[in-house]
Amino acid sequence: MKIKVGILGASGYAGNELVRILLNHPKVEISYLGSSSSVGQNYQDLYPNTPLNLCFENKNLDELELDLLFLATPHEFSAKLLNENLLKKMKIIDLSADFRLKNPKDYELWYKFTHPNQELLQNAVYGLCELYKEEIKKASLVANPGCYTTCSILSLYPLFKEKIIDFNSVIIDAKSGVSGAGRSAKVENLFCEVNENIKAYGLASHRHTPEIEEHLSYAAKEKITLQFTPHLVPMQRGILISAYANLKEDLQEQDIRDIYTKYYQNNKFIRLLPPQSLPQTRWVKSSNFADINFSVDQRTKRVIVLGAIDNLIKGAAGQAVQNMNLMFDFDEDEGLKFFANL
Amino acid sequence: MKIKVGILGASGYAGNELVRILLNHPKVEISYLGSSSSVGQNYQDLYPNTPLNLCFENKNLDELELDLLFLATPHEFSAKLLNENLLKKMKIIDLSADFRLKNPKDYELWYKFTHPNQELLQNAVYGLCELYKEEIKKASLVANPGCYTTCSILSLYPLFKEKIIDFNSVIIDAKSGVSGAGRSAKVENLFCEVNENIKAYGLASHRHTPEIEEHLSYAAKEKITLQFTPHLVPMQRGILISAYANLKEDLQEQDIRDIYTKYYQNNKFIRLLPPQSLPQTRWVKSSNFADINFSVDQRTKRVIVLGAIDNLIKGAAGQAVQNMNLMFDFDEDEGLKFFANL
Amino acid sequence: MKIKVGILGASGYAGNELVRILLNHPKVEISYLGSSSSVGQNYQDLYPNTPLNLCFENKNLDELELDLLFLATPHEFSAKLLNENLLKKMKIIDLSADFRLKNPKDYELWYKFTHPNQELLQNAVYGLCELYKEEIKKASLVANPGCYTTCSILSLYPLFKEKIIDFNSVIIDAKSGVSGAGRSAKVENLFCEVNENIKAYGLASHRHTPEIEEHLSYAAKEKITLQFTPHLVPMQRGILISAYANLKEDLQEQDIRDIYTKYYQNNKFIRLLPPQSLPQTRWVKSSNFADINFSVDQRTKRVIVLGAIDNLIKGAAGQAVQNMNLMFDFDEDEGLKFFANL
Amino acid sequence: MKIKVGILGASGYAGNELVRILLNHPKVEISYLGSSSSVGQNYQDLYPNTPLNLCFENKNLDELELDLLFLATPHEFSAKLLNENLLKKMKIIDLSADFRLKNPKDYELWYKFTHPNQELLQNAVYGLCELYKEEIKKASLVANPGCYTTCSILSLYPLFKEKIIDFNSVIIDAKSGVSGAGRSAKVENLFCEVNENIKAYGLASHRHTPEIEEHLSYAAKEKITLQFTPHLVPMQRGILISAYANLKEDLQEQDIRDIYTKYYQNNKFIRLLPPQSLPQTRWVKSSNFADINFSVDQRTKRVIVLGAIDNLIKGAAGQAVQNMNLMFDFDEDEGLKFFANL
Repeated sequence: MKIKVGILGASGYAGNELVRILLNHPKVEISYLGSSSSVGQNYQDLYPNTPLNLCFENKNLDELELDLLFLATPHEFSAKLLNENLLKKMKIIDLSADFRLKNPKDYELWYKFTHPNQELLQNAVYGLCELYKEEIKKASLVANPGCYTTCSILSLYPLFKEKIIDFNSVIIDAKSGVSGAGRSAKVENLFCEVNENIKAYGLASHRHTPEIEEHLSYAAKEKITLQFTPHLVPMQRGILISAYANLKEDLQEQDIRDIYTKYYQNNKFIRLLPPQSLPQTRWVKSSNFADINFSVDQRTKRVIVLGAIDNLIKGAAGQAVQNMNLMFDFDEDEGLKFFANL
Repeated sequence: MKIKVGILGASGYAGNELVRILLNHPKVEISYLGSSSSVGQNYQDLYPNTPLNLCFENKNLDELELDLLFLATPHEFSAKLLNENLLKKMKIIDLSADFRLKNPKDYELWYKFTHPNQELLQNAVYGLCELYKEEIKKASLVANPGCYTTCSILSLYPLFKEKIIDFNSVIIDAKSGVSGAGRSAKVENLFCEVNENIKAYGLASHRHTPEIEEHLSYAAKEKITLQFTPHLVPMQRGILISAYANLKEDLQEQDIRDIYTKYYQNNKFIRLLPPQSLPQTRWVKSSNFADINFSVDQRTKRVIVLGAIDNLIKGAAGQAVQNMNLMFDFDEDEGLKFFANL
Repeated sequence: MKIKVGILGASGYAGNELVRILLNHPKVEISYLGSSSSVGQNYQDLYPNTPLNLCFENKNLDELELDLLFLATPHEFSAKLLNENLLKKMKIIDLSADFRLKNPKDYELWYKFTHPNQELLQNAVYGLCELYKEEIKKASLVANPGCYTTCSILSLYPLFKEKIIDFNSVIIDAKSGVSGAGRSAKVENLFCEVNENIKAYGLASHRHTPEIEEHLSYAAKEKITLQFTPHLVPMQRGILISAYANLKEDLQEQDIRDIYTKYYQNNKFIRLLPPQSLPQTRWVKSSNFADINFSVDQRTKRVIVLGAIDNLIKGAAGQAVQNMNLMFDFDEDEGLKFFANL
Repeated sequence: MKIKVGILGASGYAGNELVRILLNHPKVEISYLGSSSSVGQNYQDLYPNTPLNLCFENKNLDELELDLLFLATPHEFSAKLLNENLLKKMKIIDLSADFRLKNPKDYELWYKFTHPNQELLQNAVYGLCELYKEEIKKASLVANPGCYTTCSILSLYPLFKEKIIDFNSVIIDAKSGVSGAGRSAKVENLFCEVNENIKAYGLASHRHTPEIEEHLSYAAKEKITLQFTPHLVPMQRGILISAYANLKEDLQEQDIRDIYTKYYQNNKFIRLLPPQSLPQTRWVKSSNFADINFSVDQRTKRVIVLGAIDNLIKGAAGQAVQNMNLMFDFDEDEGLKFFANL
């Protein structure tokens, strides 16, 4: 017995990953692909890699008979679209940012729009599976986290939870492959602009900053502010974050290793690497794993944490499926048991 | 009930692909990793992507209790190693070239060594699944085809079988990602030598030439000679062949499409693309599919055939698993139902 | 005493190469940058690599006081723009295709437009410097050749001129970096669509085909037809062509080497490589050189010719400057004495 | 009248850049290429891009009649080789680390060898042209700075000199292309290991750390300690550093811009970019420029400084030539007037 799912926005890179994963998920049937611009186009003609013989349609959501709807749509779309009535009919996993932040003012400040649906905003559950598993299981609307956010929070959470660092000393220097920028035709994402180049962007203003701060503040039990700087790297996928924090006490590497082990030892998708083995994006590429490790610099009394995920999988479509598995009481890793390859 | 398999040479790129695929194969247990140089090393420390908690050993093959042994070893290794007694104990799939060519003289001419095991050479079955399925099912020793070879033969086989082209007019211009060159430390395969560069190599002398000619000669029922030129492209994986042949008669595109359809319509891993949709390596990357299409040039009376595979999957490890599935009467696509992603 | 030059279309990749080269040319001053869409934008803000402190303007060409105007504009633009009066005021080097083909019908067949300026078409000189040096020196309108064309003609010219091959057997399999597709925002040229992929395009229909055929027909002194297939390779720049031709007689490698030497020994920008050293795009990247070599396959009686150029330099901006040098009686390599680096 | 120069280690990537630049330098003749392993090999056969028709030799340095010798040799080589007598015969520019650090103990701590030549170490001049111009002009032995070092010091120098930051808060997160790892055959630098991957390395232990600290300590007039983390990015060349520092006072962006302008306005190779325009490695690639810009984050009271250079040019061969120009009283940018291209 399979659940019926629909997807809005399957024509983007995260959407194609979602289709690809769901095609091999034993408990799911993709029965609707929604689009306003590609109506009538067969999916496998657009993406010959994924043999999904289904055409895009543009139906009213109320007409759909679905157990679950994934939204891989642009920001500010689902905030207007969703309502309580729809959520009574089907569960929703929203991959956009529209239900990620609890404070409506943050949408005005970081996203430059007034959130039209503040009640739903409060009801939405933040879908970072490793932190909010029980809430997700009961949720009808899950806000799937951002890619940088997932990698940053998972990498730093134990340090905040255990309060062993100077919270306001935290600097996250993040590096991402280009698929995070999506599939729209922009000069800045052309091969010849991206290849053989590295650049920073969104200095002191990237929209994932408040999302990271919100959840690390919950962990710290106080409002924290941190530095977040993303960079664009000439590769298709993968995020590496290098995070720096001042240690409050004279801790040794093993002390911190014990803390991370305590938090993550029973997680299927977090791999705390052995000492000396540093996360590299290639080992998580096209998988749902988050690889984490750290080093203590005795000269500077800082801990340097490295975290790596695949931005389109654990940072988007894979985590969405992990959320679905939790919401429908499937095995948490159902459909997600694949590994990176070169 | 799972079969027990061993692998010699799992430390290379094709070997890691084999491990990765087998880890998710429901009917297989990897119970032995053989190596002379890495004894004692745990596999997942070498390849953190694949969580195989097993150390390399260097046992005598006679001692092993295995149903199947994969050899992903250098050329000239298995020719010396294998014998009839071993084949009575276990089945063998050899990914090297040592049992691919029927004529021992071809080893002297193209590989510069005298084949020490000519009787076994005659008994080996060439593991191109789509052409020799019935023989493979009964084989105890399968010679897994080369990567260029697989792509070239599958792309051209119907034309030779139906004798609609001038056999000696065939030119195959092949392009490959760098993983085909293996994981050995050579200056020519350094990132800085490969990136932002394309080059031809092995002009008029590449070792896959006799392998392609042998099997297309079988199809044509006469000895044919063709031109094969490989190129190295700055990408990790994927092979594209562009093949040119003079048409013997005035055939239209639909005539040829009917022929390809006849030969390939019931194959799980060959996708004859719709008209106008040309094979690209990205649509087969990390999958076991071979994508094929062609165009007829009415100005020159030639047919241009394009074929794309992933060199490490359909061109190596994936086809090896497909051969295993046939030899052990599993579903042909068991463990191979994954799709390309970007 | 410097000549004053203007450029229309300096915002594209070939345009930036032209600016870059001219900035270091001792006899040239860039005094006008024309654009209809970027008026007022300072060039060095658009391209921080090239410190040209000059803003785009949109003047009537008649008002300009220039010695030379370069056109790096889209096809069908200059055909309408140019006229005899303008050519009396200034010399023109047109990097577009609008004046490359002598037969107006070829524009209808391959470019799908009716050429509005057929008289000028007959007067234009085809700017392939190594073949038409004397004509270029006297020309007022030079049609700068296409990138594939330059590489193909230079690589094959001696074989046609000496009539040692079967003309209609010629197949050119070409591979290009992505900058040849220009700087316009198209999904197909995004990093994530291009990287880790190779594809063919324009099968039996690419517009450089008639241009190659025209000039090799002149060399052969008869109308020839050939096969030309371009491919897109995941690199920014560089073209490699692999050409195949049936030899008419039993020629040895040295015979053909003597022929190439005869034609090219006194050229500053053509390097016939030593035996066994095959052209690679990295050795010509960002330079104006064309590297050529070949191999004779005694099994198939074919000659395989390899040629490599940088598509933006010898295939566009560099050759344009070389043409300028000839037209203004500067040293042929003035401003072009730079070498490839990795 | 040209000076005669020799190069030891011209077979590496920095060596080839040096050859390439010097071939077009109007005041230099390359008259000696030293090597112990490649004696007799013609340079242009090894590097077909650079037409230097000269063979490697292995002469005793005392025999050489040179004005200047460049050493592009591995660490610990020149420390043993050089002596006062040689320096009386010719000037030396050493691209290795052997004479960069003033404190011999730093060699034991960071390089794990005892420096055999401490007197010469004290006499050597650190060749960071923009900081030590007058000393370089009079030097006979110049220690050419490291690539990360050059980029880091130039980017941060004004902040330390003006003491406007908390010195010990400084974190440098650096990203480099792969050519910095040199041309030796190592598995970790193979295309398939580097491409589609980003990783950190040398955490809290990279050898450029003491070099950066030494010169920023001179600027600060006190001993400072900072955090330096390098990363390997899948590109051939280019370094980007992202540096973070806590501001001591409430400074605005314009205040800091004024400071940078004061220090760098008269430098030929430092480009302080306009506000909002962030350094990208592509704009400095293959050039001798260092591009710098910064942003002040009012939320965190930090200044974020970005700096970009080409690691092989301003970070190695280009700066070596700039040092040569200063030592021989040539124009500082002689032979270095080239710009980045894509």
